[in-house]
Amino acid sequence: MDLDLLRELSVPGDTKILLLVIDGLGGLPNESGRSELEQADIPRLDRLAQESICGMTVPVAAGVTPGSGPGHLALFGYDPVRYTVGRGVLEALGIDFDLQPTDVAARGNFCTVDAQGRITDRRAGRIPTEESSKLCDLLRRIELPGVQLFVEPVRDHRFLLVLRGENLSDQLTETDPQREGKEPLPVRALAPEAEETARLLNAFVGRAREVLAGRDRANMLTLRGLAKHPPMPSIVETCKFRAGAIAAYPMYRGLAKLVGMEVIATGATFADEVETLKANWDKHDFFFIHFKKADAAGEDGDFQAKMRALEEVDTYIEELHAMQADVFMVAGDHSTPAVVAGHSWHPVPFLFHARNYMPADGTEGFNEKTCARGTLGIFPAKDVLSLAMAYAGRLTKYGA
Amino acid sequence: MDLDLLRELSVPGDTKILLLVIDGLGGLPNESGRSELEQADIPRLDRLAQESICGMTVPVAAGVTPGSGPGHLALFGYDPVRYTVGRGVLEALGIDFDLQPTDVAARGNFCTVDAQGRITDRRAGRIPTEESSKLCDLLRRIELPGVQLFVEPVRDHRFLLVLRGENLSDQLTETDPQREGKEPLPVRALAPEAEETARLLNAFVGRAREVLAGRDRANMLTLRGLAKHPPMPSIVETCKFRAGAIAAYPMYRGLAKLVGMEVIATGATFADEVETLKANWDKHDFFFIHFKKADAAGEDGDFQAKMRALEEVDTYIEELHAMQADVFMVAGDHSTPAVVAGHSWHPVPFLFHARNYMPADGTEGFNEKTCARGTLGIFPAKDVLSLAMAYAGRLTKYGA
Repeated sequence: MDLDLLRELSVPGDTKILLLVIDGLGGLPNESGRSELEQADIPRLDRLAQESICGMTVPVAAGVTPGSGPGHLALFGYDPVRYTVGRGVLEALGIDFDLQPTDVAARGNFCTVDAQGRITDRRAGRIPTEESSKLCDLLRRIELPGVQLFVEPVRDHRFLLVLRGENLSDQLTETDPQREGKEPLPVRALAPEAEETARLLNAFVGRAREVLAGRDRANMLTLRGLAKHPPMPSIVETCKFRAGAIAAYPMYRGLAKLVGMEVIATGATFADEVETLKANWDKHDFFFIHFKKADAAGEDGDFQAKMRALEEVDTYIEELHAMQADVFMVAGDHSTPAVVAGHSWHPVPFLFHARNYMPADGTEGFNEKTCARGTLGIFPAKDVLSLAMAYAGRLTKYGA
Repeated sequence: MDLDLLRELSVPGDTKILLLVIDGLGGLPNESGRSELEQADIPRLDRLAQESICGMTVPVAAGVTPGSGPGHLALFGYDPVRYTVGRGVLEALGIDFDLQPTDVAARGNFCTVDAQGRITDRRAGRIPTEESSKLCDLLRRIELPGVQLFVEPVRDHRFLLVLRGENLSDQLTETDPQREGKEPLPVRALAPEAEETARLLNAFVGRAREVLAGRDRANMLTLRGLAKHPPMPSIVETCKFRAGAIAAYPMYRGLAKLVGMEVIATGATFADEVETLKANWDKHDFFFIHFKKADAAGEDGDFQAKMRALEEVDTYIEELHAMQADVFMVAGDHSTPAVVAGHSWHPVPFLFHARNYMPADGTEGFNEKTCARGTLGIFPAKDVLSLAMAYAGRLTKYGA
């Protein structure tokens, strides 16, 4: 549903919605002919599917493989083609950096250049985070007039650069020439209001070149995905609920914060997250809780590990169901089939359980094949939220 | 998927996509209770369906009966409501006329008028093509200042009129009053820049009236669907593939050309088309191959002939499948049920086979009922292309 319509129809209430996102949930058959979900021993999910209505969500559009950003935004009700999050912002979210609406963030890469300034290695041999960290300390000393500068290590050769000041713009080009043998490009303004920001960034790059010079590797840097916190309607205003997010990984906390959810402090494991959920059950009426391991195993191409991850989350299903949310959903932000060893475009199994007015479709088990034949059909992930709100009694009638 | 997004995500590659369009593929049960596809003996399509994923395509929108233009444009990835092709242009495509971007084309009808100039027969008794052809020869002699004129017979009372010149516009009204007892209307400009084109066309109609006067029938003409070649993004640029089209019938070649495909010369039969495909397999990475007979039989209301047409195309399926395209699709531009004896709005069976990452859904046979339960669901035909590109490894990830 369109967010404007959702805002028009939504009403406050005391019902509760629980959204469990199993990252990278969807999979594909391996040589045995059955997928991770089909082979995993997940009796609780299988049983709940039978008492629920099931379907398949399409995160972005037919054939589109989503990153984590669009995959989650869709489940939060946002059209992921209309609302985009720049790479610089995602990088900031990923390390829990407290990005302000006026900041401009960039994903930085340390790279290696030759005597002529031409890039010989775009990733500087993937230098260890520890080495990057020291280089960030050096770069942080650079001073630019009128703006505050943040340089934070991320991982390996990657770091985060943030400019904080007045009237900064992100209408800027990247400096990575995308191939070796070329010099880094200057930042160019794509709009007149970005001229000053481009000038500041080029000054930073010039100073950085001096600071890093003389090193064998990582003697230069590139800047990509220059972006500001995108203007986004708050899910709290749109849906009139108190939304709480529980996620052990920073990027998912960041995405939740981006749409206006309150991030609830939690521990490093899913068990911690579940305890956090219980402890905060009375404080919110919408909860997003995130399970990461399935995606990580899928990314690694480890079919068995992905099965185990699914089996692990299955052991929490009764506990989560026992919270008696008015609506309890098990969803994925995208598929990460182990046979692909990465995100994929395949629709994602979806389980929907409501306490009231839910015509259970008796789906036989929770997997790609059964959910594809569920009575919710194959539908856009961005419709998940409005469906939940309807079943939670949080949407009024449209029209007379 | 939106074409802008497709352009952003598509990458070149050496994988191959084969799209077989069975014109008018979908059907309806006759008195026996089973459709053409259900009654036809199509063992190869049935078997392939079981090893594929199936669904139903909606060519334009629920309830919309598409012409050949929108039906094909959707399968080529174009939203058929946004990208429209005027009747004059379709008429030109249908006779292989080499329409230029600046031309204005119109569908002409010979009609019969009485002494007062009022239309007594809008189709001039459907005069034979031979007679039309001679009248076109006469009209071709008309000269207009500053523009070149083409008048080509199409079929029966129908002909094609094309004006070629500078600064022509198609913002024009039609001259057919749509009922008998009325005089043909003048062409009117719908925008200031169309005034001159309207003047030229009215001059042509005036001269034609003189040329045709004195005949018992077909002594006047009307002009409909005045249109220019619509501005369309090229599928080659959007998808970054070398697209080749193989079709025995001119209109389908024309539609392919309209979206930027290269038309490959072929013979008059589907056997010729298949040979052409084989001979050109290395030259392209996307192929559209067109089978006409199913639609023609459906239009004739000939249930048995439509079954035979489906059985004929079935005999080529193994040969086409053996080409080992990375993605092989069997689709229809619309349904043409014999019981309707015309195009219809019913969704169209769709079969999708990919060499990689395809979770075959074991669809039992290829027909309307089985495909409606396939795991692709019922989905817009314009999503077919992006789905194919994903499975062919030709789309990058969306968002970080």
